[in-house]
Amino acid sequence: MAMNKFNVFHWHIVDDQSFPYLSRTFPQLSQQGSYHPYTHVYTPADVKMVIEFARLRGIRVIPEFDTPGHTQSWEKLSHKKMNLTLNPILNTTYDFMKQFFMEVSSVFPDAYVHLGGDEVDFTCWKSNPDIKKFMDQQGFGQDYSKLESFYIQKLLDIVTTTKKGYMIWQEVFDNGVKLKPDTVVHVWIGGGSNEEMGKVTAAGYTTILSAPWYLDYISYGQDWQRYYKVEPLNFNGTEAQKKLVIGGEACLWGEYVDGTNLTPRLWPRASAVAERLWSAKEVTDINDAFNRLSMHRCRMVERGIPAEPLFSSYCPREYKGV
Amino acid sequence: MAMNKFNVFHWHIVDDQSFPYLSRTFPQLSQQGSYHPYTHVYTPADVKMVIEFARLRGIRVIPEFDTPGHTQSWEKLSHKKMNLTLNPILNTTYDFMKQFFMEVSSVFPDAYVHLGGDEVDFTCWKSNPDIKKFMDQQGFGQDYSKLESFYIQKLLDIVTTTKKGYMIWQEVFDNGVKLKPDTVVHVWIGGGSNEEMGKVTAAGYTTILSAPWYLDYISYGQDWQRYYKVEPLNFNGTEAQKKLVIGGEACLWGEYVDGTNLTPRLWPRASAVAERLWSAKEVTDINDAFNRLSMHRCRMVERGIPAEPLFSSYCPREYKGV
Repeated sequence: MAMNKFNVFHWHIVDDQSFPYLSRTFPQLSQQGSYHPYTHVYTPADVKMVIEFARLRGIRVIPEFDTPGHTQSWEKLSHKKMNLTLNPILNTTYDFMKQFFMEVSSVFPDAYVHLGGDEVDFTCWKSNPDIKKFMDQQGFGQDYSKLESFYIQKLLDIVTTTKKGYMIWQEVFDNGVKLKPDTVVHVWIGGGSNEEMGKVTAAGYTTILSAPWYLDYISYGQDWQRYYKVEPLNFNGTEAQKKLVIGGEACLWGEYVDGTNLTPRLWPRASAVAERLWSAKEVTDINDAFNRLSMHRCRMVERGIPAEPLFSSYCPREYKGV
Repeated sequence: MAMNKFNVFHWHIVDDQSFPYLSRTFPQLSQQGSYHPYTHVYTPADVKMVIEFARLRGIRVIPEFDTPGHTQSWEKLSHKKMNLTLNPILNTTYDFMKQFFMEVSSVFPDAYVHLGGDEVDFTCWKSNPDIKKFMDQQGFGQDYSKLESFYIQKLLDIVTTTKKGYMIWQEVFDNGVKLKPDTVVHVWIGGGSNEEMGKVTAAGYTTILSAPWYLDYISYGQDWQRYYKVEPLNFNGTEAQKKLVIGGEACLWGEYVDGTNLTPRLWPRASAVAERLWSAKEVTDINDAFNRLSMHRCRMVERGIPAEPLFSSYCPREYKGV
């Protein structure tokens, strides 16, 4: 990351499939929810090492604990051991979250945590008669996004008490949750992301753009060019609005990626995003970029990083494993 | 390859971009045509090692020296040092080929060589007035595929004198070149490959199918399923015709691949092709296949082969580099 001038590591550390974060407060979470409780977890020592390794290279580490969606791995615990579930009408849920994010705030030194809030599936809530009743009492009708907002609002208040700022995915903003003024809104949905950027910045929030840079969507050919050609400020808005765009993020989601293919899939495709984000709007020559990126790719290869080729080419020193 | 029951390594050893094969007879070919004449060549010792490594695992090695197309790297030599060009009207071309394939026949022990013959671009020939004159004399008119056939016919005769059988890409058959009865025709063009399989086998030639298994065409998602679902004998033809299909081949072309990403891109996607080719027509359950392939993928990972995940999952022992 440092070789490519990336300076924030957004660590999407848990998801539906697995909860590898070993919590000191709730060790059962990874005990029940990780792929394997000993071989497939991030221990407190692992997490410290990652943060320190990053710090020495000028990289911030922002962890994401995404709720209330993408929590199948959390819920393994709830079904088995505790009366926890991401049930937004129970006080125990918020008691749990309070303790959990207290821990998170002490483990991760960065001023921000990422709270997720994307892609919430309401099936589970809809099947619960108590939740239905609660919806009626609150006057939410059939609008489960109102219930989601109710949950998120309480979560944000909890995290605020830990003295952390927060990032959230765009849905939380879209659903009209009341946000602290320093909230970072993370725009990810591909279609209409320019419109979304306009809306978020018009509301005065700082913003990070990821939508055009989902590196998990692979395709045949030089797809780095598509990432490179994006102009992140290409939305309708005032100069003041554009200043609220504090950066962009290359996302490599893990559904088809692990230690076997992470590095070549990430580099040098992410390098193209980095150059775009650090370059003036006017720097758009794709052939120039190809030459620079090819050279940079060979630099990585020479240092033992298996960055894949941009196109047919060769490096003075090829990768032979480290 | 052995772990996945692949038993022929089709070594596409030279191409437009580079001529890494170090020929004892014409060392200038790789001297002029390789990416780098010392660091990016296959020396005679390298080639021997590959062949022996494969032999010990029951794998045949068939080299491809593709002409008259895909020869930009050969022609670097012709322009600089010798009066060689892949000019089909010069006797020197055939003298060269004769010597070259004499060497090839002694270096590679397999009974077959692959002679290519695909994707011939006629631009160069069209620009040559002598060739135009020759075309008139032969009565070829404007049909350059006739000139191509003329060339290939002479090449096949040359290779026959070396006592080798040959494989060729489907275009050679399509263009009506007279082939030895034991020729293997390699079907690769995606659209209408079933029709092509019907035609080739109706003409009595043994055939290998590659068209559905071009692993360089990557896409988002579980594309192994697409490879798995192919039924290679799904063309109109008699039982006798179907018996002529002697196998299939997973092709991983190198335009976006080198040592940094070869292994995870190849495996386990090629494993899906292997299972299809070794399975009865009736074995089609994709969930069963997923379970088998996942387990097999972990077997590879455990042996230090960075085969990428088929989908979100984990192995008891993950890849951590070798």
